[in-house]
Amino acid sequence: MHTAKPRFLFCQIFLWGNLDMILILKKNATKQQIDTLCHSLKSKGLSLHQSEGEQSHIIGLVGDTKSLDMDSLRANPAVEEVRRISEPYKKANRKFHPQDTIVNCSGVLVGGGNFAVMAGPCSVESPEQITLVAQEVKKAGASILRGGAFKPRTSPYSFQGLRDDGLELLRHARSLTGQPIVTEIMNTEHLPLFEDVDVIQVGARNMQNFELLKELGKLNKPILLKRGLSATLEEFVMSAEYIMAGGNENVILCERGIRTFETSMRNTLDISAVPMLKKMSHLPVIIDPSHAAGLSWMVEPLAMAAIAAGADGLMIEVHNDPANALSDGAQSLTPKQFSALMQRVCPLLTLMEKQLN
Amino acid sequence: MHTAKPRFLFCQIFLWGNLDMILILKKNATKQQIDTLCHSLKSKGLSLHQSEGEQSHIIGLVGDTKSLDMDSLRANPAVEEVRRISEPYKKANRKFHPQDTIVNCSGVLVGGGNFAVMAGPCSVESPEQITLVAQEVKKAGASILRGGAFKPRTSPYSFQGLRDDGLELLRHARSLTGQPIVTEIMNTEHLPLFEDVDVIQVGARNMQNFELLKELGKLNKPILLKRGLSATLEEFVMSAEYIMAGGNENVILCERGIRTFETSMRNTLDISAVPMLKKMSHLPVIIDPSHAAGLSWMVEPLAMAAIAAGADGLMIEVHNDPANALSDGAQSLTPKQFSALMQRVCPLLTLMEKQLN
Amino acid sequence: MHTAKPRFLFCQIFLWGNLDMILILKKNATKQQIDTLCHSLKSKGLSLHQSEGEQSHIIGLVGDTKSLDMDSLRANPAVEEVRRISEPYKKANRKFHPQDTIVNCSGVLVGGGNFAVMAGPCSVESPEQITLVAQEVKKAGASILRGGAFKPRTSPYSFQGLRDDGLELLRHARSLTGQPIVTEIMNTEHLPLFEDVDVIQVGARNMQNFELLKELGKLNKPILLKRGLSATLEEFVMSAEYIMAGGNENVILCERGIRTFETSMRNTLDISAVPMLKKMSHLPVIIDPSHAAGLSWMVEPLAMAAIAAGADGLMIEVHNDPANALSDGAQSLTPKQFSALMQRVCPLLTLMEKQLN
Amino acid sequence: MHTAKPRFLFCQIFLWGNLDMILILKKNATKQQIDTLCHSLKSKGLSLHQSEGEQSHIIGLVGDTKSLDMDSLRANPAVEEVRRISEPYKKANRKFHPQDTIVNCSGVLVGGGNFAVMAGPCSVESPEQITLVAQEVKKAGASILRGGAFKPRTSPYSFQGLRDDGLELLRHARSLTGQPIVTEIMNTEHLPLFEDVDVIQVGARNMQNFELLKELGKLNKPILLKRGLSATLEEFVMSAEYIMAGGNENVILCERGIRTFETSMRNTLDISAVPMLKKMSHLPVIIDPSHAAGLSWMVEPLAMAAIAAGADGLMIEVHNDPANALSDGAQSLTPKQFSALMQRVCPLLTLMEKQLN
Repeated sequence: MHTAKPRFLFCQIFLWGNLDMILILKKNATKQQIDTLCHSLKSKGLSLHQSEGEQSHIIGLVGDTKSLDMDSLRANPAVEEVRRISEPYKKANRKFHPQDTIVNCSGVLVGGGNFAVMAGPCSVESPEQITLVAQEVKKAGASILRGGAFKPRTSPYSFQGLRDDGLELLRHARSLTGQPIVTEIMNTEHLPLFEDVDVIQVGARNMQNFELLKELGKLNKPILLKRGLSATLEEFVMSAEYIMAGGNENVILCERGIRTFETSMRNTLDISAVPMLKKMSHLPVIIDPSHAAGLSWMVEPLAMAAIAAGADGLMIEVHNDPANALSDGAQSLTPKQFSALMQRVCPLLTLMEKQLN
Repeated sequence: MHTAKPRFLFCQIFLWGNLDMILILKKNATKQQIDTLCHSLKSKGLSLHQSEGEQSHIIGLVGDTKSLDMDSLRANPAVEEVRRISEPYKKANRKFHPQDTIVNCSGVLVGGGNFAVMAGPCSVESPEQITLVAQEVKKAGASILRGGAFKPRTSPYSFQGLRDDGLELLRHARSLTGQPIVTEIMNTEHLPLFEDVDVIQVGARNMQNFELLKELGKLNKPILLKRGLSATLEEFVMSAEYIMAGGNENVILCERGIRTFETSMRNTLDISAVPMLKKMSHLPVIIDPSHAAGLSWMVEPLAMAAIAAGADGLMIEVHNDPANALSDGAQSLTPKQFSALMQRVCPLLTLMEKQLN
Repeated sequence: MHTAKPRFLFCQIFLWGNLDMILILKKNATKQQIDTLCHSLKSKGLSLHQSEGEQSHIIGLVGDTKSLDMDSLRANPAVEEVRRISEPYKKANRKFHPQDTIVNCSGVLVGGGNFAVMAGPCSVESPEQITLVAQEVKKAGASILRGGAFKPRTSPYSFQGLRDDGLELLRHARSLTGQPIVTEIMNTEHLPLFEDVDVIQVGARNMQNFELLKELGKLNKPILLKRGLSATLEEFVMSAEYIMAGGNENVILCERGIRTFETSMRNTLDISAVPMLKKMSHLPVIIDPSHAAGLSWMVEPLAMAAIAAGADGLMIEVHNDPANALSDGAQSLTPKQFSALMQRVCPLLTLMEKQLN
Repeated sequence: MHTAKPRFLFCQIFLWGNLDMILILKKNATKQQIDTLCHSLKSKGLSLHQSEGEQSHIIGLVGDTKSLDMDSLRANPAVEEVRRISEPYKKANRKFHPQDTIVNCSGVLVGGGNFAVMAGPCSVESPEQITLVAQEVKKAGASILRGGAFKPRTSPYSFQGLRDDGLELLRHARSLTGQPIVTEIMNTEHLPLFEDVDVIQVGARNMQNFELLKELGKLNKPILLKRGLSATLEEFVMSAEYIMAGGNENVILCERGIRTFETSMRNTLDISAVPMLKKMSHLPVIIDPSHAAGLSWMVEPLAMAAIAAGADGLMIEVHNDPANALSDGAQSLTPKQFSALMQRVCPLLTLMEKQLN
């Protein structure tokens, strides 16, 4: 029996599990180019699912595409476009770990309904300053003491922190109040100095200091990872993945304001990062309202918004004498202001069914 | 008595009231250039306060600098730099109007402790749809009905709204439920059609459609002005100033998400706009959490954050059948989801001491 | 014959021409949900190509997806994700119109190797000013006269342009020099005033004033469309598509600087827009280096870069007395500076094999 | 004699040289607060120039304000606003060093009319690859060989570079072709490995890795500093200042694309950075058109634009087999394409009066 030449090409596609990536081939790709491409992909252990039409040809990839270089695929003469379907992160992915992670910071729990307030000065400046602030913030309800010893400053002429001595002062303050301490690391060479620190902070500017992230992945200690000023949320989670890929899954994500066109404040708090990060990942998410706006009078409304949006904690700068602070005075609360803030915060935590630790 | 030649030049400066602008002159500016500049400034009714040093010369301007063109001043051969000190807006400025403005939307108050929820579909689609949604959102606690008749769409091939017919359907829904209606205008030529609309909305893309703002300034009707996707807060307030300069001071500011690098959601809600706008201006500030993220599951956390940050109202998209909505389905709540949201919202309003109108 | 239960589901897919959109369904989508979705899509005239796997199910759509609302598709309970494959613009798309469009501006050609310089003051201010500048820029090599009559200003207190009178002065200048004129429209109501204008400009702030674009689509006159300050290139081309969809295909695209975080200049020239727009579309692309940086001393390097990147024209502000310009003085060249610029520009045009018209 | 109470306060101001910073005091600042502030400022060696009016009080600061913390000044109860007048960088500042710096890269000069092309693969992958590419790019006119040994990758699962072995391969290639080599450092701990490298590159993500910058400041070797993806030009120059403050003034600035909202290419080349950086600083400025767009077909127009805008060099990725590159294939030219590019580039360099080294 005669059949008319079919108007369309037919083909079968086979899907093994989830599709991870889609390649759309060029209309004019030659059979040889396509064969070479397919051979190369299969040699990387990927399953290929082809769907070929009269004018289009799509290849679906299933398997471990995490290490595939999308840019090189795009350079392939047969490829028109590459689209990733699955997320490029795995250990941080809520899909593979549906329950909230609770990070234990030397006894203070963060995440999964546990709310922690970390407070203290931007920079550790003197024994008196850090001791006084530590006692004041503890009295007001902060369970973790923050304070910078190594300070990343835009200008080489600005105060660079007390460094080793600052760490020593933090430990001394901890011995008086019993609060775990969190402080920032800037370089792998300083790691030995941080052995007795409870929570190591990675600052926004080091969010993609990959050598540092790798080393932190070898520790067994909570890492507080701050989001880069212009990082997407996927990039942020990928940086957490760097740490987790090394074996350290104790990561706390901290949103601290992103760069926008706004000039009336330093940065813009991305409050939507809270629910979105919690959808993407099981890691706890805290907010730093002090750095976000850079203005002390905005700390309260932003802290309230953070809690209402579902955050797991706050990081707040408190200084006994903001006008003479060696850094970031404009955003620091006085101990009295911090205490007033805690009074406002507590009823909201109750409403949101969070446990203040 | 002989005195050594003084090392420094001295000069007197006289300050009449607040300084509004500072001009820093070029080191090599000639006397004639400076004289010409000063003459020109004085002829505009400004007071000049000169402070002249060995290597620098600064002129402070006091007076009505609002209409001065900073760019042309910068082009002056004698001028190195121009800095504005006072805000370029006046009628919207809280400094000159310390008390919160309360806007009366056909009986529903917004601002000054009064909180209003505006809800309804993105687009008015049919009599059944708008009537059903109007009744459902009223029952759940929304006091104002929103719905788009004229729709600004990125593509000319997308649904452009029912236009005149949509306005008619909104009025019909109002006759059934008694809720005032808010809907968007896109063009001055449509103004006659909006005579019987309670609140006229200016969309984000028209925030700087100055011809439209001028015409709205001639009305005596509340204007809900949405912030442009990349507008600074000062530009936003300046657009309100356009309306107010024409005589209409009934302006409600609405933050609806700004454009950022984030790709996991449509826009990024700028929660810090709430406290900052309230510091800059006395006008009420509401939040649209639906457009902000473009995702219905994010409406609740963002709405909660908005209230906690001090907003005066919410604008929320509700559709009886989001999957078949003619526009913006992904961000629309069902009436049932909206009702659940209102249950969450009410205790927080109480905590924040806001009156739900 | 017994066959082992197949480990994988098989299915056939049929591709009619290009795939336009891909829907990735949710793992837990029910058969009924999927049937309803498919029925709805087919009723819109689309062909569906399903590829169903053990854990994933993808639907490829072929046909006129331009009017599909991606957001509502995302709201469908069966849909996990929606990806567009084909461009949402058609008339402006180079794929369907491979040859460069040459726009005829009352005799001056732009595009396809033809290069035009449009020059003149930001604002038309007086008969003397516009006449003088028109003559000077003509002498130096500009073939089209620019000048603003209706001025979009951020502040209601700034000079708003001479409006009707400004248009009259432009026409008068044209009668003296013979140059076609280009000037900005801000509102559909002003259209009758623009009947005798050679090229109508749509400003950056009106790039998405869709009602205006629609009306311009009904004309048979060149439209110079400026890119919005934060618009993506696709949005820019979509705005051109709005005009072209109405029947007017004489659109010139103008990149004039985008908003970035940089504060040392007004905007940032996106030079890569030139090659990318030319890949996306067949329409001519010109550059406005005056608005881009807002600084007269940067006009030359940016104009040179524009030509080297392949632009089809320049739009440059020239003022006889920048320091006393009523707007944008800081970015205006004097006639003498403009003449010097043209001396620099010409050898580069020759090198780039462009014909200066 | 009785005189009427003067309507305005008078005061004298003394200006020692240039004004560096202006403090605008709060209307309600008390005398004691102001005295304390002034005392504190004077104790830092600053000269104060007060200009006091009826309602305003301004203090001009002259002296070394580089280390003043503006945020803490803003936190002072007497201070309303702080504005910096002078640039916060000094060694990199063209004002103090009007002539172009020429950096000597092991014999290849960059800056001051000397133009250098650096070319090579994104990653060093094998002896054959780097040797082949080195020879090809040298033949085509590249005077410096680039190649990555330590690779900063967004994903921990991507190829991380050959590290030490990659450096060894680069040195081997150099021994064959005689080209100086430039390669990226990611961590201070790797510094000993870079002793025999001619030019050390700091990647965009490490532009504010201040500990690394400080260590590089101790070397006597050219540093190629890439601009961060969202850094302002002032921040970029401040990072150069970090290196120069340590004593190493051999810094080459490299613009490589900034993050914008555009999705059709990876980043957006900021061509205006070339003239603006050259105004701010005396350091040479080069352009990396490969990373800017991430698309090989855009390298030529962007490279041409860079030269026309006044750049001092280009950094271009070349790979013998882009489709199989271990990183960044989509943006790599083949040796043949690179050779064609150099043919286009040379006449433009002649026109711009640059010497290709």
